[in-house]
Amino acid sequence: MKLSLGEIADRFDLSLKGDPAIEISNLASIDQAVHGDLVFLFNSSHRKHLTDTKASAVVMREIDCTDCQIPYLISERPRLTWANVAKLFDPLPMQAATRHPSAIVSDQAIIGAGVSMGPHSVISAGAVIGDGSTIGAGSFVGEGSKIGEHCRVFPNVTLYHMVCLGDRVTIHSGAVIGADGFGFEPNKGAFVKIPQIRGVVIGDDVEIGAGTTIDRGALCDTVVEDGVKIDNQVQIGHATRIGGDTIISGCTAIAGSTRIGRNCWIGGAVGIIDNIEITDQVEVTAMSLVTQSITVRGRYSSGTGLMRGRDWKRNIAAFKRLSNLFKRVRKLESERGD
Amino acid sequence: MKLSLGEIADRFDLSLKGDPAIEISNLASIDQAVHGDLVFLFNSSHRKHLTDTKASAVVMREIDCTDCQIPYLISERPRLTWANVAKLFDPLPMQAATRHPSAIVSDQAIIGAGVSMGPHSVISAGAVIGDGSTIGAGSFVGEGSKIGEHCRVFPNVTLYHMVCLGDRVTIHSGAVIGADGFGFEPNKGAFVKIPQIRGVVIGDDVEIGAGTTIDRGALCDTVVEDGVKIDNQVQIGHATRIGGDTIISGCTAIAGSTRIGRNCWIGGAVGIIDNIEITDQVEVTAMSLVTQSITVRGRYSSGTGLMRGRDWKRNIAAFKRLSNLFKRVRKLESERGD
Amino acid sequence: MKLSLGEIADRFDLSLKGDPAIEISNLASIDQAVHGDLVFLFNSSHRKHLTDTKASAVVMREIDCTDCQIPYLISERPRLTWANVAKLFDPLPMQAATRHPSAIVSDQAIIGAGVSMGPHSVISAGAVIGDGSTIGAGSFVGEGSKIGEHCRVFPNVTLYHMVCLGDRVTIHSGAVIGADGFGFEPNKGAFVKIPQIRGVVIGDDVEIGAGTTIDRGALCDTVVEDGVKIDNQVQIGHATRIGGDTIISGCTAIAGSTRIGRNCWIGGAVGIIDNIEITDQVEVTAMSLVTQSITVRGRYSSGTGLMRGRDWKRNIAAFKRLSNLFKRVRKLESERGD
Repeated sequence: MKLSLGEIADRFDLSLKGDPAIEISNLASIDQAVHGDLVFLFNSSHRKHLTDTKASAVVMREIDCTDCQIPYLISERPRLTWANVAKLFDPLPMQAATRHPSAIVSDQAIIGAGVSMGPHSVISAGAVIGDGSTIGAGSFVGEGSKIGEHCRVFPNVTLYHMVCLGDRVTIHSGAVIGADGFGFEPNKGAFVKIPQIRGVVIGDDVEIGAGTTIDRGALCDTVVEDGVKIDNQVQIGHATRIGGDTIISGCTAIAGSTRIGRNCWIGGAVGIIDNIEITDQVEVTAMSLVTQSITVRGRYSSGTGLMRGRDWKRNIAAFKRLSNLFKRVRKLESERGD
Repeated sequence: MKLSLGEIADRFDLSLKGDPAIEISNLASIDQAVHGDLVFLFNSSHRKHLTDTKASAVVMREIDCTDCQIPYLISERPRLTWANVAKLFDPLPMQAATRHPSAIVSDQAIIGAGVSMGPHSVISAGAVIGDGSTIGAGSFVGEGSKIGEHCRVFPNVTLYHMVCLGDRVTIHSGAVIGADGFGFEPNKGAFVKIPQIRGVVIGDDVEIGAGTTIDRGALCDTVVEDGVKIDNQVQIGHATRIGGDTIISGCTAIAGSTRIGRNCWIGGAVGIIDNIEITDQVEVTAMSLVTQSITVRGRYSSGTGLMRGRDWKRNIAAFKRLSNLFKRVRKLESERGD
Repeated sequence: MKLSLGEIADRFDLSLKGDPAIEISNLASIDQAVHGDLVFLFNSSHRKHLTDTKASAVVMREIDCTDCQIPYLISERPRLTWANVAKLFDPLPMQAATRHPSAIVSDQAIIGAGVSMGPHSVISAGAVIGDGSTIGAGSFVGEGSKIGEHCRVFPNVTLYHMVCLGDRVTIHSGAVIGADGFGFEPNKGAFVKIPQIRGVVIGDDVEIGAGTTIDRGALCDTVVEDGVKIDNQVQIGHATRIGGDTIISGCTAIAGSTRIGRNCWIGGAVGIIDNIEITDQVEVTAMSLVTQSITVRGRYSSGTGLMRGRDWKRNIAAFKRLSNLFKRVRKLESERGD
C-alpha cells in the first residue's frame, strides 16, 4: 500500500507543505521512522526529534510547524488524523465473505448476507449472524446467540448460548462471553451451584479485548452498553452493567451486580467489588481497589506508590502500627494542653 | 419452559399463598421482573421493592410475608430455593451424547457411555472420558488425560497431557489445565528450562472458570481437592494444593508450591506468593497480597482503601516518610519525659 | 522410562555413592517420593527430610552428603542437574512431524521440514513455519506471520497476522499474540479506533505462558527480546519492548509504549503503566504498581503488607488522614521549640 502525500492531504482536507508526489508507505513513530514513513507530532515537546527523523513527512498542529525541515501536513488534531490515516495502511486481512468448508453451521442458524465463517468455526442452532459479520477460525457461537451486523469476531472466541451482540462489535481472540457467573450457595457442608440462567447483552460499537471474560447473569442479564471499549484480560461478573462509552483498561476485575456509569475511565488492573454503584465520569487509576459506591465524579486511587525495597519494608512495618501512632500523637497534643 | 406456581411449591415442598395455577416462565431480580417472573427476597430490607414489582410471585422467608400483596412461596432459605428452582429454568443446551463427525478421537482413547464430543474437539491417545461427560466444541484433551463421569468441559478448553479430573467437574471456556509451571534455572547468562514432568489432579465437584489456568507440577502434581470452586481468570502455579471446598474468586493469582487449606474464601484479584501455607477457614479480602504463611484462621486484608486522587497523592507522599514519622513521635514522647 | 542411577551419573558426569544398578523411574519432591524416585536436596536445611524419604536416591552438593543413608549423586548445582535430568523423564508427547488431515493450511504458506500441524490447526496465507516447529491442535497462525525453527506452539494458541517468532519459542495454550493494542481517540462524544497496523516481534528462546496476551503496535512493533520468559496470564501492551532475558511472573500487566530493560525480574500480578522506562536488572516484587520510570537498578515494591482484617480497617482509616498527621507532628515539634 502506497499513497502520495498529496492524496492523503486531499482525502482528509489537510494543508500540505512539501512535494505532493512524495510516497508514503507506512506510519511510524518519530524515533523509529524510515524513508517512506509518515509520522505524527502529538506534543510540542517532541519537536526536537524532528531534526533527526528519517520520516518522509510529519503531521502536526500549525503551532508546531515553525522551522520544520521536512514536508508536513497540518492538522489541529494529529491523533484524530492518525486514526483516520492509519485505516488506509491497515494490513488487517479481510476474510472472504463465505463459509469455509470446515465450518460447522447449524441448519437452524440464520446467517445474513456477506457473512464470513472461518475454518473450524461453529455456529449453533438458533444463532443469528447479521449481515457483513466475520466469525474467525475456531470461534464458537452458542445456541440462540445473536450477532449484529458488521461485527468482527476474531479466531478462537467463545460465545455461550443466549449472548446478544449489537452492531459493529469487535471481539478479540480468547475472549469468552456468557460463561457462568460465579454463584454457589453453601448447604450441608458443600456448595450448591446457582444456575446462571440469564444472558449477556452487548451494545453497538463495543470492542472487547483478547482473553476478556464477561459472565452471564443469574437473575438478570449482564449488560455492556453502546460504545464501551474493553481491553485485554478484563473480567466482568454476572449481572453487572457497564455504562455507555466507558473505557476499561487491561486486567481489570469487576465483580457481579455492580453498576458502572457512562463515560468512566477505569485504569488497568483495577478491582471493583460486587453490588456497588459508580456514577458517570469517574476515573479510577491503575490497580486501585474500589470497595464502595462512588457518587461523586472525579478521580479515585488507592495503593501506596512504589518504593525501594528497603524503604518499603520500613514503611509497611510502620503502617501496621499506624492507628496506634494517631493515638500517641493525640496524647502528646492533649498533654500539651490542646 | 413454563411451570405453575403449584408445581414449584409441590416439587420443593414450599407453602404457597396464592393461586397455584399462576404460570411462571422465568426467574428475575425484583426490580427488573416482568409478568410471569418468579423473584426472590433475600433480605428483609428489600421488602419495599415488593410493592412495585411486576413479578407474578415471590419466594421469601415467613418472617418477611406480612402484608405481601403478590402470591408467595415460603422458604426459610430463599437462596437455596433459588438454586434449586433455577435448575428448572436453565436454558443451558444439553449436547447430544454422540461424537460429532468433525471430532478427532484417537483410537487409543477410551470413551465411556453417553459421552458428547463436540465439533472439532480433539481426544488424544490414552485419554479416558468417563460416562456421561461432555467435551465442548474445539476443546483439546491431551495424551493420557482422564476425565471422570458427568463432567462438562465447555468449548475451547485445553487440557494438556496427564491431567486428571474427578467426577462432575465443570470447566469453562478458555481454561487451560496442565500447561508448564514456570521454572527456569539461570546458567551461564541464560535460563535452562526445568521440565514440568508431573501433572494436575482435580477432585470431584470442582468448577473452574473461563480463562483460568492451572499449571502442571515439576516434582509433584498440582492438586485441587474436591468441591473447590474457582472463578474466571485465576492462575494456580505448579505443585500448589488447594484444600477442599475452598472458594477462589476471579483474577486471583496463586504462585507455585503453596498450600491453601480447606474452606478458605479467597477474594478476587488476590495475590498469594509461592512456597507458603495457609491454614483452613482463612478469608482473604479482594486484592490483598499474601506474602507469608497464615496459621490462624480469620479474615486478612491489605491495601490502602480508595481515596480521591488529590488526597491519595498527599497520603502516599506521607507514606514514603512513615517510618521516619514514628521516630519523630518517639523523640517527642521521650523529650516529654515518658 | 527407566534409567539406572549409573547411567544418570555417567550422562551428567556426577559422582555416585551407591549401587549403579538402582532403577530410577521418576523424579519427585523429597516428602512425596516413592520407591524408584530420584529426589533433589536444594537446601541444607531440608536434610532432615532425608531420613524419612522413600526415594531411591538423592542429588545433592558434596557439603550436604555427610551421613546420608540413601544412595546419592553429587552435584554442585542440584537445580541445574534437576533441569537436565528431568528432560529424560519428561512425558511431554512429541507430535508427529506431519500435517493432520483436518489442518487447514493455505497453499500460500511456506512450511519447513519436519513441521507438525495438529488437528484443526489453521495456517493462513503468507505464513512461514520454520523447520521442526509444532503447531498444536486448534491453533491459528495469521496471514504473513512467521514462526522460526523448532518452536512449540501448544493447542488453541492464536497468532494474528504479521507476528514474528524467533527460533525455539514456546507458546502455551490460550495465549494470543498480535491482537489490537488498546487505542481510541475521543471525537464528538464517541471513540474513533486507532488502527493497530504494526506487528509483534518475539526473539529466540522466548517462552510465553498460557493465556498471556501480547498486543500488536500502532506505530511500531511490540518487541520481546531473546531469552525472555513470560508466565501465564501476562498482558503486554502495544509498542512495549521487553529486554533480553527478563523474567515476568504470572498475571502481570504491562501497559503500552513502555520499555523494560534486560535481566529484570518482574514479580507476579505487578502493574506497570504506559510510556515509562525501566532500566536493566530491576526487580519488582509481587503486586507492586510501577507508576514512573526506574533509572537505578535494584528491588522495588509497593503495597501495605497483609494484616488481620480488624487491624487493617483501623490502619487504612488512619492512612486516609496520614498527611494531616504529619502536619500535627510538625506543629508539636515546632511548639517544642525545634
